[in-house]
Parts: sequence; structure tokens; C-alpha cells
Amino acid sequence: MTNTNKTPLILITNDDGDQARGIDVLTQIMAQLGDVIVMAPDGPRSGQSNAITVNQPIRFRLLEKSGNVSRYSCTGTPTDCVKLVLNEFSDRKPDLLVSGINHGSNAAINVIYSGTMGAVLEGCENGITSIGFSIDDHSAQADFDAFKPFILDITRKILELGLPYGTCLNINCPKGDIKGVKVARQCEGHWTEEFEKRVDPAGRNYFWLTGHFQNHEPEATDTDIWALENGYISIVPTLIDLTDYAFMKKLNAINF
Amino acid sequence: MTNTNKTPLILITNDDGDQARGIDVLTQIMAQLGDVIVMAPDGPRSGQSNAITVNQPIRFRLLEKSGNVSRYSCTGTPTDCVKLVLNEFSDRKPDLLVSGINHGSNAAINVIYSGTMGAVLEGCENGITSIGFSIDDHSAQADFDAFKPFILDITRKILELGLPYGTCLNINCPKGDIKGVKVARQCEGHWTEEFEKRVDPAGRNYFWLTGHFQNHEPEATDTDIWALENGYISIVPTLIDLTDYAFMKKLNAINF
Repeated sequence: MTNTNKTPLILITNDDGDQARGIDVLTQIMAQLGDVIVMAPDGPRSGQSNAITVNQPIRFRLLEKSGNVSRYSCTGTPTDCVKLVLNEFSDRKPDLLVSGINHGSNAAINVIYSGTMGAVLEGCENGITSIGFSIDDHSAQADFDAFKPFILDITRKILELGLPYGTCLNINCPKGDIKGVKVARQCEGHWTEEFEKRVDPAGRNYFWLTGHFQNHEPEATDTDIWALENGYISIVPTLIDLTDYAFMKKLNAINF
Repeated sequence: MTNTNKTPLILITNDDGDQARGIDVLTQIMAQLGDVIVMAPDGPRSGQSNAITVNQPIRFRLLEKSGNVSRYSCTGTPTDCVKLVLNEFSDRKPDLLVSGINHGSNAAINVIYSGTMGAVLEGCENGITSIGFSIDDHSAQADFDAFKPFILDITRKILELGLPYGTCLNINCPKGDIKGVKVARQCEGHWTEEFEKRVDPAGRNYFWLTGHFQNHEPEATDTDIWALENGYISIVPTLIDLTDYAFMKKLNAINF
């Protein structure tokens, strides 16, 4: 798994599945930077977080090899996709993992639900420079054109800079015009009014997950939500170590 | 959702499902501390992380009401279980969320895959004091006896102390004798050799997720893995804000 080649090896995945436009756009961009392996879920896996498939086996298959791009699909989650490539068929560790482009924002607390970012955390755990790209537009027809040159430019700069072990990037793009790029922090907030209740023909209730994001800090100007609402691409450096170091001291004062 | 009652309202969930022994043990303990609502997945949901169910509806049903305990099951994930209770049928916000007792450790990087901890992060996002309990024993017959008094004692102390918004606890118990309790940090490490490859009767490959945890810092004595390997219960204060604040400065130095 040592890189003996100067051309970067780039692993691409997503959570919208191998048929989504976002992953095609990302693949076209990354093919300009290196050799590309795409391993995408074989259907939508939105909201799959870092889920792994433990109660059933998974499979994958080659869809297409063309030029410097090999495209595979897998029956598992985005995190499974990353694990499969790292363990089963790459004799070279990827230099870069990119996930997306997700159709829908993964800013704020959405980072913990996102399958796009689940794959990014998985790459990061494995010591790979890992970046998630999302656009604040859920439409299958989302317009990625304005985002494309930023994705290329940011990725080049991050490949040059490198990321420390345990840190990955959550990058979100506003819908519409882009004013620029802001390094931001994860906005604090939570989801409310989350279910739409319906009654089936037999008279039994069932529930569709929906809801609204409640911003806890609408005045703050250094958050990812502020950036998106004001026309900027947000870059949030994101940790896989969730330890609250500051609170350890307070807990240590308790006699457990 | 205001607490007008001095008896704490306690929400319990897990990722091993409503038939697991761990959640029964946790329910018996918590019934000593307050009124209990159990909302558990209707089957195993291990490794479900913070996954939410977005592509199909979910249902829940009452299993049993007995004394101060109401037990429900749900067709969704652990995170869905928490969202359902908070949104659909509690006119009082729970004072405490506990998840588990998970059959298997959620120490180190396992925190990001764990459905048990997914539910805890969800409670935390909603401003509820939230604690995950796990034991380092995957057996359905795991012996929880030594852990029980610690769960009761730690929970009482945390209810009294309170937790700041955005911080929850990941508590893991060693198998066998318990020497005491350590406040710890999330051990750095990753999973390797993760799949067992098999061939089906038609000659096609399929893959079972398995693997080994690779500890990056076996010498460190302040990690959750060290605590468990040395007979201590580990308490890791855990954040839902994943921002790497230290790295923001370095990123800000780049001209994006």
C-alpha cells in the first residue's frame, strides 16, 4: 500500500448512489488530477451516517473501466464502499478520498447523519486525505457548474498542504452564485417537527421523517450555515476524535 | 416539553433491539431513578451509527406498560427511536437518555459506527443529558452484574452534575472484574483486515465485514482502550461539534 507512483490515486464515493449526477461531476473533475477508482452504493444511501453492514454480506461489481477511471458499485453503505476498496482490491493506498457531490447540504449537525461524510470519516480514520463535497440543493438536477472550479482548486491546494491524521474536510456549496470561500465552524442547532404522520388503508399510523433545522446561533458569522446563507462555500475541518477534552477535567473532579 | 414533575423522565434505547438482554438490565436499573419510556428497534441495528430512515416510513407500537415503565418498539434505527419519542408522544422532554447496554465495546473509533452512541448523540443534539453504556463482551449472555451498581451510581452523579449542551458520555465496561472508573479520551486507531471473502454456490464472491482494531497508541495510559484492557470502566465525554478548531487557523492561512 505504498505510493510508488507520482500520479495520485483518488477514491470516490457518495451516498446518493452510482446513478447520481453529483458523483459523475466529481469523477470528471478528479480525473484531471489522478487515477480514479469510483466505488459507489448501488442506490440511494442518504442519512446512512457511518453505518456499516454487519448482518448481511455485501457484494461489488465493476461497471466500467475507461481511461484512468474505474467505476464500481457496491450493495453496502458509503462506509462499506471505502472499507472494500482499502481492503480488497487496491494494492496502493489512495492518496485522496473525495465523497459527493452530495445533493443537499451537510452543514451543521447534518455532518453526523450524512453518508457522504461517513465515507469521509472512514477515509480519515485510514490516514487518507479525505474531503466531502455537498451542494445546498436537493434536486437531482442541481446545477454544479459554479462549484466545479472551486472543487478543483480546493482539492489541489489540500493535496499540496496535506491534512493531519484525524482531520478531514466538510465542504458545502450554496445554491446559486458563489461569492467566495470561508473556513468555518460547525453551526450549533437541532432538527424539530420531524415527522409527517399518515394513516395507511388499514387505519394504522406510519411516519415519514422530515423536519426543520433550528439554528441555535443565527447571529454568528463564523459558522458554515452563515457562509451558505451568505453565498460562500464553507470549509469545516472535521475531527474523528470526538473527545471533549475540556470537560474531562470537570469529570475528573467527580468521585466515581 | 417542560418538566413539571420532580420524578425524572428517562428515555431508553439501544441498537441490539428490543429482545436484547442489555436493554432489559438497563431498564431495571433506570426504573429505580424515574419514569421510563423504552423505544427500541424491533431487531438488531448494530453498526447503524447516526443513520436515519429517509427512504421509507417507520412505525412503532406499544409492547407493554407496567408500573413506571412503558416499552415500545420501532421499525427504524436507534436515532429514529429518539426522534420518534421526542416528536410524537412525549408532552414532557426526557430528563435523561440512556442507550444500551450494548453487547460489545464502543470504545475508540467504534464510537462513530455505533448505533448505541448514535442515539446518544441524537439525545445530546436535543439538549438531553445522554449516556451510552456498553460492555466489552459481544455474547448475548454477557454478564452485566458487576456493571449494574456502577451504572446506577454514575447515572445519579451525572443527573446531579448535568452535562453542557453538546457533550454526552460514552461509557464502556470491561469483561470480568471491575477495578474502578477512569475518565478517558477516545483512543486513536483504525480497523484492518476487514472482510471475509466467500464464494456463493453460483461462483460469485461475497464479503462479510469482520476485522481487527489496530491501536495507534498502545503505550498511552489515558485512553478508553487502556482503561478497558486494565479492568476499568471508561467514561469518555463526547462532542457533537466535530470542528477541528486548531486546524481552522492553518486553513485560514491558505488563499482559497
